[in-house]
Amino acid sequence: MISPEAIRVNGRPAREVSALERGLHYGDGLFETIACVRGGARLLEQHLRRLASGCARLGIAPIDPAAIAAEVREAAAESDRAIVKILVTRGPATARGYAASGEEQPTRVMLRYLWPEDDAALSEQGVRVRIASVRLGENPALAGLKHCNRLEQVLARRECADAGFGEALMFSSSGALISGTMSNVFIVQDSMLLTPCVDRCGVAGVMRAEVLATAAAAGIRVEERRLDGDDLERSQELFLTNALMGIRPAREVAGRSLVPGTLTRHLQAQLAARLSSAADGSEDAHR
Amino acid sequence: MISPEAIRVNGRPAREVSALERGLHYGDGLFETIACVRGGARLLEQHLRRLASGCARLGIAPIDPAAIAAEVREAAAESDRAIVKILVTRGPATARGYAASGEEQPTRVMLRYLWPEDDAALSEQGVRVRIASVRLGENPALAGLKHCNRLEQVLARRECADAGFGEALMFSSSGALISGTMSNVFIVQDSMLLTPCVDRCGVAGVMRAEVLATAAAAGIRVEERRLDGDDLERSQELFLTNALMGIRPAREVAGRSLVPGTLTRHLQAQLAARLSSAADGSEDAHR
Repeated sequence: MISPEAIRVNGRPAREVSALERGLHYGDGLFETIACVRGGARLLEQHLRRLASGCARLGIAPIDPAAIAAEVREAAAESDRAIVKILVTRGPATARGYAASGEEQPTRVMLRYLWPEDDAALSEQGVRVRIASVRLGENPALAGLKHCNRLEQVLARRECADAGFGEALMFSSSGALISGTMSNVFIVQDSMLLTPCVDRCGVAGVMRAEVLATAAAAGIRVEERRLDGDDLERSQELFLTNALMGIRPAREVAGRSLVPGTLTRHLQAQLAARLSSAADGSEDAHR
Repeated sequence: MISPEAIRVNGRPAREVSALERGLHYGDGLFETIACVRGGARLLEQHLRRLASGCARLGIAPIDPAAIAAEVREAAAESDRAIVKILVTRGPATARGYAASGEEQPTRVMLRYLWPEDDAALSEQGVRVRIASVRLGENPALAGLKHCNRLEQVLARRECADAGFGEALMFSSSGALISGTMSNVFIVQDSMLLTPCVDRCGVAGVMRAEVLATAAAAGIRVEERRLDGDDLERSQELFLTNALMGIRPAREVAGRSLVPGTLTRHLQAQLAARLSSAADGSEDAHR
């Protein structure tokens, strides 16, 4: 059993939320998972921007970014390495049924977890990746959002709970490669870096955007496009990204062995430098 | 503000659930909305069967149908007309992330609401129905389930919150007519009753099954099939069903006027008789 070290609800230490939560009844909310390293919250501004944009798209009342930033920074300062999750829902229901009344007061939950031990080794050696049989439904109205309707991911994770796989790749209902269950995916084809579009399903990951920017800054040819199973089979390198793992190479995909390649290693180094300098700047700015 | 008259969590009066609820974080749960009439819970066995089947499909620990039935019957007995919602989630998370550990203890929430006033008139006169612009993603792994990933319905309801529409019909991403936001849909074409398949998305409604059985018993030609926008335009009658409304005719669909027709009226009468005799039997059995 892995429990959070701290939980706050609407800024106060608490263990519970209302049983009327629309988050509970409909998954009517959004979340961010933030890597806290050396006392700082990595890519915090990017997380807050995505959260605000998600609230706008779902019609959830605007968040107070300064309040959330203060809460996350306080949580980050309390340990050397921690994972902070911020969940924002539309709040307790003010009526019965799906329709929001517009009178809801959003609920914010903050959870801080210890960072697991084994991450560095996985970034070095790479992980085994399989293909999930569960597919992602396509819905442009929800695509890109890190919302709380995550049953597809829950079911996909069930499939690979037993074996030594670090992640499962998910295809959409129309056969496009989209992402891992908890990560975005990049492939290398002939020195070109490719990642799936997330305009029909999938999450527009904060680290995905950071890797795209890092690659562009490093002069690497990079493109978001629709990818399919053939693209996956033709990939010479493949790596996964999320806010916690940064870039995690695959050493096996769907039974095929892969070696974390030169482009992956180059990008890992460039990203580490970029995140390190951003963290320094952010710490200067906030202290 | 419409609040429930009573809330129970795991059988006890309570107002809150754990902030670690997987229902809250991922919509990792299922629900039933049960019509309670004249002190009895309508179609209770059907609701319990669907809930048990949903838990099995999602890998949520089996429910205790007798405990839920007792709780619903007790809630039903306390008023002449009430709506009882039963929500079952996988329970509070025992680890971080989408993967279930298998150690979760399900959470059951029971909410009892007053029945709104105006329902009978809507069943008589019919309602205006529009088309939602939000579509339903297709996922056979979740299709048919009354699960808690309901952001598509939340967004669709937002579209028609302002006008005098009783329901919005939803199409799937591949262009199939599926359902209303909170109801199943039936159309009549040349004396044949048709309703969309719910094997790629949509909810296998308890009342939908009851209406299919009622129609078959009445000798009406009835079929579940893939329907599209052309079928909708060609429909001579259209009605909506759910556990609360029974059969509710449309008097306008996408701007086209419709008259609640003879087949709809015949089925309404047959269904009322069927539900009435089932309720009597059920009351005998349980008293």
